[in-house]
Parts: sequence; C-alpha cells; structure tokens
Amino acid sequence: MLRRTLFGLAPAVLLGGTRRPWREVERILERGDFQGRLSVDDLPTPALLVDLDALDANIAKMAAHCRAKNRALRPHGKTHKCPEIARRLISAGAVGACAAKLSEAEAFARAGIGGLLVTTAVVGQHKLERAVRLARLKPETTFCVDDAGNLADLDEAAREAKVRLNVAVDLYVGTRTGIPAGPPAVTLAQAIARRKNVRFTGLQAYAGHASHRNGFEARRELSRGVMQTAVETRRLIEAAGIPCPLLSCGSTGTYNIDCDIDGITELQPGSFLFMDVDYARIGGQDGPVYRDFRHSLTVLTTVVSKPSAVEAVVDGGLKAFSTDKPFTPEAKGIDGIVFSWGGDEHGKLNLTKASRTLNVGDRVEFVVPHCDPTVNLYDRMYGVRGSQVETSWLIAARGMSQ
Amino acid sequence: MLRRTLFGLAPAVLLGGTRRPWREVERILERGDFQGRLSVDDLPTPALLVDLDALDANIAKMAAHCRAKNRALRPHGKTHKCPEIARRLISAGAVGACAAKLSEAEAFARAGIGGLLVTTAVVGQHKLERAVRLARLKPETTFCVDDAGNLADLDEAAREAKVRLNVAVDLYVGTRTGIPAGPPAVTLAQAIARRKNVRFTGLQAYAGHASHRNGFEARRELSRGVMQTAVETRRLIEAAGIPCPLLSCGSTGTYNIDCDIDGITELQPGSFLFMDVDYARIGGQDGPVYRDFRHSLTVLTTVVSKPSAVEAVVDGGLKAFSTDKPFTPEAKGIDGIVFSWGGDEHGKLNLTKASRTLNVGDRVEFVVPHCDPTVNLYDRMYGVRGSQVETSWLIAARGMSQ
Repeated sequence: MLRRTLFGLAPAVLLGGTRRPWREVERILERGDFQGRLSVDDLPTPALLVDLDALDANIAKMAAHCRAKNRALRPHGKTHKCPEIARRLISAGAVGACAAKLSEAEAFARAGIGGLLVTTAVVGQHKLERAVRLARLKPETTFCVDDAGNLADLDEAAREAKVRLNVAVDLYVGTRTGIPAGPPAVTLAQAIARRKNVRFTGLQAYAGHASHRNGFEARRELSRGVMQTAVETRRLIEAAGIPCPLLSCGSTGTYNIDCDIDGITELQPGSFLFMDVDYARIGGQDGPVYRDFRHSLTVLTTVVSKPSAVEAVVDGGLKAFSTDKPFTPEAKGIDGIVFSWGGDEHGKLNLTKASRTLNVGDRVEFVVPHCDPTVNLYDRMYGVRGSQVETSWLIAARGMSQ
Repeated sequence: MLRRTLFGLAPAVLLGGTRRPWREVERILERGDFQGRLSVDDLPTPALLVDLDALDANIAKMAAHCRAKNRALRPHGKTHKCPEIARRLISAGAVGACAAKLSEAEAFARAGIGGLLVTTAVVGQHKLERAVRLARLKPETTFCVDDAGNLADLDEAAREAKVRLNVAVDLYVGTRTGIPAGPPAVTLAQAIARRKNVRFTGLQAYAGHASHRNGFEARRELSRGVMQTAVETRRLIEAAGIPCPLLSCGSTGTYNIDCDIDGITELQPGSFLFMDVDYARIGGQDGPVYRDFRHSLTVLTTVVSKPSAVEAVVDGGLKAFSTDKPFTPEAKGIDGIVFSWGGDEHGKLNLTKASRTLNVGDRVEFVVPHCDPTVNLYDRMYGVRGSQVETSWLIAARGMSQ
C-alpha cells in the first residue's frame, strides 16, 4: 500500500496526511520550510500543537486588557519556554518576559529577548557569576531576593564585576518563596537601597493559591486579600523614602482581578497563552467553565492498539503529558472518551460512551491537564492553522530549570 | 565574598564545590573532560545524578542473575534513554536493548546500539517507512504487532523496500496493548509465518500490573498466572509448526519470578538500573522494602528560600521530578524531611522532624518517585562516585516518544 499509486505516493485514505513520503516530511521538518506543504497528520506523534489563531486571540485579549487597565504585561516565560512566543508577546505590547530560573532567562537572552524578570532567587557562587554575566548582556534584567545573605552575595558579585544589578524583593503571599510582607520586606528593601551595587526596582508577589482557587468570587476575595498586603508593603516602602516602581503579580486566574487593585503595576500571567484542563475548571465570571481564553495547546496522538471494541490505546502517556493534576487529558472533538494512564508511553481510552469509535491508525488530539510541564516535555511545538502546519518553534528553554 | 581569597577563588565554605569559577566549570561541562576536577556541588541544580558504583552493581547483579538462569537480558531503554548505559549493559552481557517507540530505537541505532526490540507497534505510513529504514541499518531489529491490518502494512512496506522485517506478536496480558493470548495470538503468528516479507521471531508479554503488585508472594502469584498464558501461547504456536524462539517479558519487579517460569526466553527490565521510591515500596522477598537493587538515581537541588525556621524551598518542582505517583521525592541522607510540590519550579520541604536543618544555599539530593519519566526531563545525567563528577552522559533519546 505504500507509495504505490498517484505518482508513487500512497493513497490519502491510508495516510491521513499529504501523501508525502517520510523522507520529504523529515526534510521539511528539519529545514522548517513548511509553506503549506504539511498537514498535522504528517507529524510524528505524540506531537505538541499550538493553534495559531487561538494563540493570537489569547495574546491580543490579554494585551488589550493590560493596555485598557494601564498595567504593564510581562508574561511568564516558564509556560512557553519559546523565544518565538516571547517575541510575539513583545510585539503585542509586553514589556519583556519573566523567567522562572536563571538558565531559562539565559536562553531567552541568547535569543535576543530583553526585559527579563528572573522570578526565583539566584543562589550560590556560580549562579551569582551567571547573573552578573546576564546583566552585562541585558542590563535591564531584574533579579529577585528574599534573603539578606543572598542580597549581600548579589551586591558583592556585582561589585566585583563592576555592574549594577536590578533587584526586586520577592514577597511571601501565601505560597512558596518570599519574605513576609510588611516590616520584614521594608527592611530588606532598605538594605537593597543602602547597597551600592544593586538597584531596588520594587516587589514581586505571586500568589499561586489564589490563581487556582475555584469560583470567580472566591478567587477575587482571596486574591484581593493577599494582594492588599503587597500593595500596603509598597506604600510602606515609598513612605520610607524609597521609590518602588514595580509591583509584579497576577496570573491567568487573577488577571481581571489584580488589574483592578490600585498599586499593582504589572501582570506576569503565562497559561492564558495555551490554557489547559486545570484552568478551564477554575470557573469564570460567567459560569463554572473559565472561558476567557481559548485552548490553543494540544497533544496529537495516534491509536496504536485496540484491545477490544470499547478500548483504544494511544501513543501518549506519562512522557507526553503533564501528570501533576488529578485529572487526565481531554479529547478534542470527540465526546465521551475517558482517558487513563497506560504507563510511560501509552494512554488508555475507554470508548464506551464515545461519540465515535476509533481504530488503529486514527489520530486523537488532547487538551493537556497542565500546560507548563507538558510544554517542558517537548523540544518543538508545531504552529497550526486548521489542519495545516504553518511553523515549528524551538522550545529553547526546555529543561532549563537551573 | 566571590573569588576573593586563596588565589582569587572563593572560600570553600561558601562554595561547597571545588572553588572553580563558573566559566571554568562551564567549559568542563561543555567539553566533558572531568578528570576529577568537579565536585557534585559544582553542578548547576536541579541536576540528574547517577551513582556509578550503584549503577554498576545493579547491572552486574541483573546480568549475573540472567546468566545463572540461562535467560537473555534485553533491558528496556525507555528507562535510561542513554546510549552510554545501553553500551554498559551490552558489555555486561545484554543482547541489546528494548525501545518503547520507533524514534527511541532510531536514537539508539544512530549511537551504534544493536539488538533492538521496538516494544510498541509501528503504526501509519511514515512510521512504517522509518521501520524499514531502521531495519536496513540494524537488520536484527524486531518489531511488535498486535493487529492483522498493521501486519499487512508492515509486510507491504518490507516488500516495497526489499527488506525482511523481524516481527513478534505483542500479547495482551492484563494491561495496555497486545492481542489476547491463545488462539487469537496463534492466528496472528500464523499470519506472520505465511507472509514473505516478515519473519516471525516470537512473543512479547509485558505485564505492568504484575511488576508493581505489592508484596513478593502476591506479585509472584499474579505474574506466574499471566505468564502461564504467554508460555501456553508459545507452546500452541510451536505445536502449529511455527518455531517461536522469543518470549520476552519481565520487569524489575518480576525478574526473580519470571526467570523461574519454563518457556520464558528473555527479560526486559529497566528500573533496576536506577530504582525509585515506587519500586522500593513493592516489597522484596525479605521484607516490606524492595532492596534487590540500589538507588543509583537522584536529583540534586539547592535551597533557594527559607520562608520560616521549619520550611525550606528547593529549586526542583514539577519540571525536575516525575509526578505520576501518589508520593513525592525522598531526601537522601537526611531523615524526616517531608517534600510537597511547590509548583513547576519548586519543592517545599517541611523540616519540623528533619534530622538537620537546612539554609539557603544548602544542597539536598532526592530519590525520585518514578525513574523513567524523571530521566525524560533531563538532557544529561552526571555520573558520580562519592562527591566527584566522573562523567556526563547525553540522554540521547530524551523526548523521543514518537
């Protein structure tokens, strides 16, 4: 059946794709010269897809929102890890990109992305040396601190290297890292302001628990509460005579909450680009499903086995999807499929209530449970419009958790 | 404090490492010429470490076991994805490597590894073309089928390419993929034997549910039960006049069970190389902890924040560890630490009952919940002996789930 008919190419019914032999597809994938020549069915699965229309709509909506609310937008690069997307965001008005870790920031900087905010403290001799090197390349980069010892190290590293580092205080607002809001944070801000080789730029206050709180009203109440402590800390610092131009916070879950809080200067959301099963479930202003942004990210799989009439096995498992949420991937365009994990390499589909059946060779696209750690599993994402592959983007900071 | 004392290098107490500046460490990491010059504390974290003494002991033990039991050993490459480890296993007596997917097998073949068994069916025109290409490079490669239509496609692809493909029947033995044992499998074997462009090599029967069954006796009972159906199928095929030289099965959990079942010809375990929190909990012959193999794989992290006296935050989160198990990473060398997820980039440690405290900059090593998907997060693993970094291995098939 291979390449038998039609000028040596295989029949479409078997291929699903564009009838090109693999050697041609491989060459197009390597060179990236798509030019409308590949269909999504030509992609080897599992493949990470991004729907470009949905992505662009999400970017435009978030950018317009921040513009209307007069807040800066510095989307979090840990979600996409992809310089092409960072550039797209900056073209739409973003002031730069957040990077979760120094090595992620380095990857963005190497690709020419500026306006970086490194959201995790830079700890240890080697990381300090790298921070200084990054600041030479991108002097506007801001680093976060929540510890007086780490501040002293940063200041000394900057002194020795004869650079001046921008430093923000990371506030503890209920989860994870940071120094308590109020007097401890003010004291740390004062310590920064006293040092010669660092420059105080402001505050970071990321409240992950608020972002994912179910129900819009509950989320608003929680976020307004914790953000009030951040806003008050900013006021205290300015009352102590230290300018505090930055208060960076917010997320996909709270973008339309935090923008209405006076004193917040910028948002650092990430997941709005892609959306996932998780964020769809937090609830929106208009009902139980959060619909502010479109699902643009999916993983395309192929049915590789059919153990029974109501079971199918796809080639995407623990290595193709994030697994940190209590729920599994959701099939796109087919109702009633129940996905369960089939180990590292497989997903098991129960088709008992499926709106159509599936056979070996059929392709199924899934919305992912959690976008960030899913993206981190892939070296490339394919930008698609309809069934056509338009581009392929390197996930340059994949694995850069250092 | 940086590079201030002792010939321009920083004091060891602050570094933990070998006092080398980052630019030197970076050069050594890039070139891979370690020569005893780096300590684990020089590695940027999170870093994937493999204890070479423990790895070598695990390899030697499994190889000796298979030799003594007169079974072939074809360890599963999906665990390590690393040609250097595949070579080490072959040096110890392994007959080759299993690969979960075709792209993983291609990565091994490119690195010169032979004796490949591709354990997932090769489905779709492009994968078939690639299978043929792989068979040209490594003619001894075996492919698995569980579907008559897929077999017809494989045969046709082989015919067109003028190669002969080795094909094994994948048996359904309780989980995931495969054709039911007994008559359906015999019929498929006969169909293979009748076709001219494929060669029947035998059976694959992987029982994942047996591998992870808690308690040695319960595991033995389950594995013996499901493997009996595989052995019986092999007998039926041979009774039908078709030689069936291969019956590949087994896992880290059942290696010392399946080797005692007559008719099983080879084992395909993977996790024994590294071990993880999961396998430690399945129970051994001598008690509730499975100790047959040593924990060789860890993730090294750094404390980057200390929100309170009894809380520390390390720089390893959902992107540094597998998250598919109900339990979290376990600290090595420190008792009483309770790890909980702190998002994509962080792990939260409760130190209330810890055997020692931790401060910003301290390093903590963790045994991972599940080794395979953790390895798949990293581009390299560092081979260490004691505190010295001896080598760095490319995880060449990382992300190769296609």
